[in-house]
Formats: sequence, C-alpha cells, structure tokens
Amino acid sequence: MALIVKKFGGTSVGTVDRIEAVADKLQQSRKNGDDVVVVVSAMSGETNRLVDLAHAIQEQPTPRELDVLLSTGEQVTIALLSMALEKRGCPARSYTGGQVHILTDTVHNKARIKDIDAARVRADLDAGRVVVIAGFQGVDEHGNITTLGRGGSDTTAVAMAAALKADECQIFTDVDGVYTTDPRVEPHARRLNKITFEEMLEMASLGSKVLQIRAVEFAGKYNVPLRVLSSFEEGEGTLITFEDEGMEEAKISGIAFNRDEAKLTILGVPDQPGIAYKILGPIAAANIEVDMIVQNIAEDTATDFTFTVHRNDYKRALAVLQATANETKAREVKGDNAIVKISLVGVGMRSHAGIASTMFEALAKEGINIRMISTSEIKISVVVDEKYLELGVRTLHEAFELAEKKPF
Amino acid sequence: MALIVKKFGGTSVGTVDRIEAVADKLQQSRKNGDDVVVVVSAMSGETNRLVDLAHAIQEQPTPRELDVLLSTGEQVTIALLSMALEKRGCPARSYTGGQVHILTDTVHNKARIKDIDAARVRADLDAGRVVVIAGFQGVDEHGNITTLGRGGSDTTAVAMAAALKADECQIFTDVDGVYTTDPRVEPHARRLNKITFEEMLEMASLGSKVLQIRAVEFAGKYNVPLRVLSSFEEGEGTLITFEDEGMEEAKISGIAFNRDEAKLTILGVPDQPGIAYKILGPIAAANIEVDMIVQNIAEDTATDFTFTVHRNDYKRALAVLQATANETKAREVKGDNAIVKISLVGVGMRSHAGIASTMFEALAKEGINIRMISTSEIKISVVVDEKYLELGVRTLHEAFELAEKKPF
Repeated sequence: MALIVKKFGGTSVGTVDRIEAVADKLQQSRKNGDDVVVVVSAMSGETNRLVDLAHAIQEQPTPRELDVLLSTGEQVTIALLSMALEKRGCPARSYTGGQVHILTDTVHNKARIKDIDAARVRADLDAGRVVVIAGFQGVDEHGNITTLGRGGSDTTAVAMAAALKADECQIFTDVDGVYTTDPRVEPHARRLNKITFEEMLEMASLGSKVLQIRAVEFAGKYNVPLRVLSSFEEGEGTLITFEDEGMEEAKISGIAFNRDEAKLTILGVPDQPGIAYKILGPIAAANIEVDMIVQNIAEDTATDFTFTVHRNDYKRALAVLQATANETKAREVKGDNAIVKISLVGVGMRSHAGIASTMFEALAKEGINIRMISTSEIKISVVVDEKYLELGVRTLHEAFELAEKKPF
Repeated sequence: MALIVKKFGGTSVGTVDRIEAVADKLQQSRKNGDDVVVVVSAMSGETNRLVDLAHAIQEQPTPRELDVLLSTGEQVTIALLSMALEKRGCPARSYTGGQVHILTDTVHNKARIKDIDAARVRADLDAGRVVVIAGFQGVDEHGNITTLGRGGSDTTAVAMAAALKADECQIFTDVDGVYTTDPRVEPHARRLNKITFEEMLEMASLGSKVLQIRAVEFAGKYNVPLRVLSSFEEGEGTLITFEDEGMEEAKISGIAFNRDEAKLTILGVPDQPGIAYKILGPIAAANIEVDMIVQNIAEDTATDFTFTVHRNDYKRALAVLQATANETKAREVKGDNAIVKISLVGVGMRSHAGIASTMFEALAKEGINIRMISTSEIKISVVVDEKYLELGVRTLHEAFELAEKKPF
C-alpha cells in the first residue's frame, strides 16, 4: 500500500465525461489498496473565461481580486470530481487551497508556497477517503486568497506530496512521458523510463513543456519521486528521480530545442570592467529576459558580446542595444531572429569526454554551421540557423543513438 | 455619515455592464460620505449552470460538495465588483463567507448563520474601503463551506448589518418596493413607504416574494431597519421597521394571495383526542407541508377537518388522506385544487374591529363564495374558487381604500 499524490490538468478534467474517467482511475487505485490525494486544475477553458470577464472590467485587474476570481476555477473541479467519486461509493472530500492551509507569500498571481499543514489531509486518508485538492491556489498569512500562476497545480501536487511524504507524485498530462526529443520533429524519439531532476530541469527550461520548472525544482529539493503519465492511455510514463547506478550508461538523455530565440551582438565594444552590466543593464531595465550570453575577446582593448532573447522581444532589444552602442562607442550592432537553439542534455556527460566533439562533428558533416555555443555541467547548447532545426535534431538523435538505447 | 449594508441580487449583477452600474451606485454612496458594505449574489444564470454540472454527475449531489461548487458563483461576483470599484479609484476588498467568518451550522445546502466576526470588515471600513462580501455562504466550525439555500444572500446582508450595527440594510431588487398587492392583478396597487416586520412576514409567506422570510425574521430579531429598493430606478423603496405612531392609521397594509394551494377535507371522522395528529401525522411523514388548517365540529361524535397543501402535493396528499380515512372509518374524503388564498394583512387590524365583516361583506356583494377562513393577529385569509382571484383582490383593494391611502 502506497500513498500517491495524483495531479490532473485542465484537459484531463475538461468535461463531465473526463471527470468521470478520472474518477474511474482513482477508484481503481483505491481498489489496489493505495491511499490517494488528487490535485486538479480548472476545467480547460474556464480560466480563460474568467480572465476575459476580468479584462472586460479592468485592463489591469487588481491582483488580489484576480486571485479571488481565478481560484473559483479549481474549486468547481474539486466539487465535481468529489461528487463523481461519491457516486461510485468511493468516499471523497474536497478542499480549497485555503482549507488545507497551503500557506504562500502575498505575491498575488504568482505566489510561492511557504508551508502546508497536512494534518487534515492525513485524517481524511486515515478515514479511508480520497482527498481532492484545488491546485494553483493558497492563502497568505492574513487569509487572502493567492494563486501560484499558470501551471501552478503541478507545484501544489509536488508540495502536497512533500508535506505528506508521499511515495510518489504522479502528474497526468496529455503526453505519456518525457521523450528523448519532440516526436513531431524526430519520429524515432523514444519515451524515457527515467530521467534525473537536473536533466528534467534542463529539458523543461529548454522548451519541452511537460512540467512546470518550479514543480521539478520543488520535487528535487524535497526528494519527491515524480512521474509523468498520460491521462488518456495506460502506461508507466517517465519517472523523474535522483541519479542512480543504472543511469551511468546514459551519456545523453535527450535533445531539447527552442524556436523562439533571437540573437544580438555588439561588436568592438571597449573592454573594461563593468561592460557586461553596461550592456545587459538597460536590457533588463526594459523587462527583456536574456537566455544565452557569450563574450569573446576580439582585440586587446575591445570585445564582442552576444546574447539571445525571446523572439517577441527582438526589435525592442535591438533598439536598446543600439543606444548602448552609441553611448559606449562600440563599432557595430548585429542581430538575427531566424535562429534556433538545440541542446544536448544528460547527467552522463559529466563523466564522459568527447560529447561536445561528437556533437560538433555530426553537425559539421551535415553542413550545419554553429553560430553560438554555450555549455553547462549537463548540457551543451548550440545556436544554428532556423532552417537547420529539424535536420540538426535528427542528426544528433542518431549520432547519440537515442532511438536504439535500451530502457533502463 | 451612516454605515449602510447594501445587497444586490443575481439580476442586478447579471452582466459586466450591470456590475459597472452597481459600482457607480456604490461610488456615489461613498461620495455622499457613507461607509458601505456590499453583499452580492451569483450572476444570474450562474447558479443554474453550476447545478446543471452537478446533476450531470450525480442525481442527488453530495450536499457538502454541492456547497463547495455553488459558493464559487458569489466568489466570481465579489472579485468582479471589487475590480469595477478599484477601476473607479474607489478602494475595495472582497471576502468570501469563510474569510469574514460567517459561522453557520453544518446543515449543508440550507445552513443557518450562528455568528459573524465583523472585526475584519470594520478594519477595512476604517481604512476607507468598500467591503464586498459573498452572500449565501459561510463556513461551519470545521472550516467546511456551507450555503444558506437560495435567496440566502438577503440573510447574509441582514446578519452582516446586525453584526456591524449598521444604520440600514438595503436590499436592491428588480421591484421598487413592497406594494399593497400585486400590480399585475390590481393596477391601482400602491407602493408602501413603510411596513412592519410582522406585516412583511405575512406578506412574504403569502406569496409576495420580494424578500426571503428568514432575512425579515433576522432583521426583526436584531432590530435592523431593512429597505427594499430597485436596482434600476431611483426611489425611496419601502422601509421595513418596527410599528410606530404614524402606522396606527393604517388598518390594512396590503393584500397577499397565493395561487398554489389545494384544499383537502376529511368528513365525519370520529372526534377523539389525538385525531388531528392521526390525520396530519401521515401527511408530514410524506414530507408534505400543510398551510391552513380548519376544524369544525359537525356532530356530537364526529368532526370535519380541512387543510391546504401546495398544489404540487395535492395528489399525494389525497392518497395519504384516503388511507387515513379508511383506517379511522371516516365518512368521506373531498378535495379541490382549483382554489386560491387571499389574505388581508395589517398590524392595524389588532385594534380595529369590523375588518373581517367589511371583508366578507365586500366579497359577498360580488357573489364570491368563501370556502374556508383562517385568521391570525394581523391577517385574515380566505380560500375562494380560483376564478375569483383577480376580482377578489380588486374588490378588497377598493373596499379598504388602499389605492387612495396617503403615504405615511
């Protein structure tokens, strides 16, 4: 008998029929002898409907009141799912974030969980009930309703699993696990049975949008085994856990990519202490997020500085950088918004030399020019021309034998 | 400067435009220097939408979960109305029933308010905020969400006014006050400027569905002046308050009527102690509510017993009564579901003789046969054939000069 926290997103509870299907699944888990806590999102479409209502009244809705409004979405789902369970003779009880004391800070619309009082949930589990909890929401110390931001239900589930010391936290989504890369780009992409928290973080932040980054961080921090599975198909999904012996073999877990990047370069800028801040300070002040940063010494007294931003911010970033160039008497500003980033991710690369050279060789063989390189402990990212995205991903997938690799 | 609790029902907040109009009204009250607490219902249609969702899952929704579901309706409204106020530069803060500790018993779907902690509301008022409170809902001592039953928002408003010792509780509806009778039946019906709590209770329970009975009881018990006004038109509305000097003149305040009645009679039942219980016990056991009850001694050893029920319960009641008749060896059972009840209501009748005879005379002149009579301290009700409803109401309205009576 295990204690499992299961999270179902908006699509999985999007209609009455789907809620019934989730109830069937949960009833089965109870029959198998597991204790079950369920965290649910708002029915798909509901959050958008509420946001539209708010915007019809206020262009910038008052953050506190937006949270009061949006939190009703999950509250509807917990009630309906509990009814579906009760109908099956499966005792259930629903709770809002506030009712199970999911204590957050007061940053409305993107609050962070500080504490959970799991006593009430434990009492219900002991009484044989399925506990149904509204994701995405909490209360601050004054009892004000807060929300965790979109996708925050994943975080609720992981935090609840941590507080209850659950055996596993299962995130049910519309995909059946984490893949070596996007199957729409590489048909031979393979579902991973296991992946480490660190790898998952790199995969998620690089564009494999299966899980919220904060949820993965949370799970890693509190040592909660996390599993991604399909709501609609049977299967084992992918277990996200700590590195173990069996993982040593896997140099590379997957290939992530990001189509939304744009690259900016400032050339021949006088190399002096504080120059990076002088360049990136105005960018940050304009609320533009920077992803990759690369600096090369060009001459003795001048340097070239390149960074990438979200493609939507490209034009604004270019204008800001041009102003900086004029001010610092840099030689030139260049930009390119027809680029993509491709990244190899794997904890195995820490202990295996030659990953980078294999990567660069494979790309060179296909005539793909690398425009920018950046590395971390478990990741190598390259920027290439947009047109090479699919070819690049497939080439690397094959070069690292990701399709053929045996399951752990 | 006064402290006013204002309540707006579902129609008054049924669209974004109407919510904006309510915000305008509230802003005006603030400009006039009043402290304002607002209690709102769910947007019209929303509660039905939620009930339909529940019924799609469970024929008899689990009462606790139905309350979790339905309480989201008002929560949406408080958030949107607060946004509309904030947009106008009018500081506002919304609260669910649980957040302002509207403590109720645990009878889900029709809970009763036991206590309100008004400290938080008072702090917001002191800070110059409009406080926007979700009607219809509360929490029990364990923090479970409860609802007060349909129309419970009126009760929330009155209870909040009592807890805050507000100067007035204003109920905004789609009518502009309480009338001497239904203007659709008697075009000369006149809006009353004032009416007593007792009269209002008799008017409400007799079918003038302007206010929830429980709200009026509550207001009377805690001495909260209650005013009914229109959400859509300007006007003073009707003040519901205690009897005062000026009211002595008014023998009759209004004429209520009820089309939903049916009459049942058991004839020649042996007259012995406990016979009323023997007749009505099985009716109550069948969950049928009884309205009027009249008993006549027919002979020395037998009695006739008549009572009225809701017309929907007529057939069931007839079957139950027939069984009782067989058992008690009564002579006969009769029934009639083509009857209506017309009632004169007025605290003045306590101190004025002759009201009843004036009433009976007026009806007799028009050839309206009275089938049943029942009286209380401030009310005389008669049952007549359905076809006489309009004629009866108009006849009495004229006989008691209700149209011409001057405002207090």
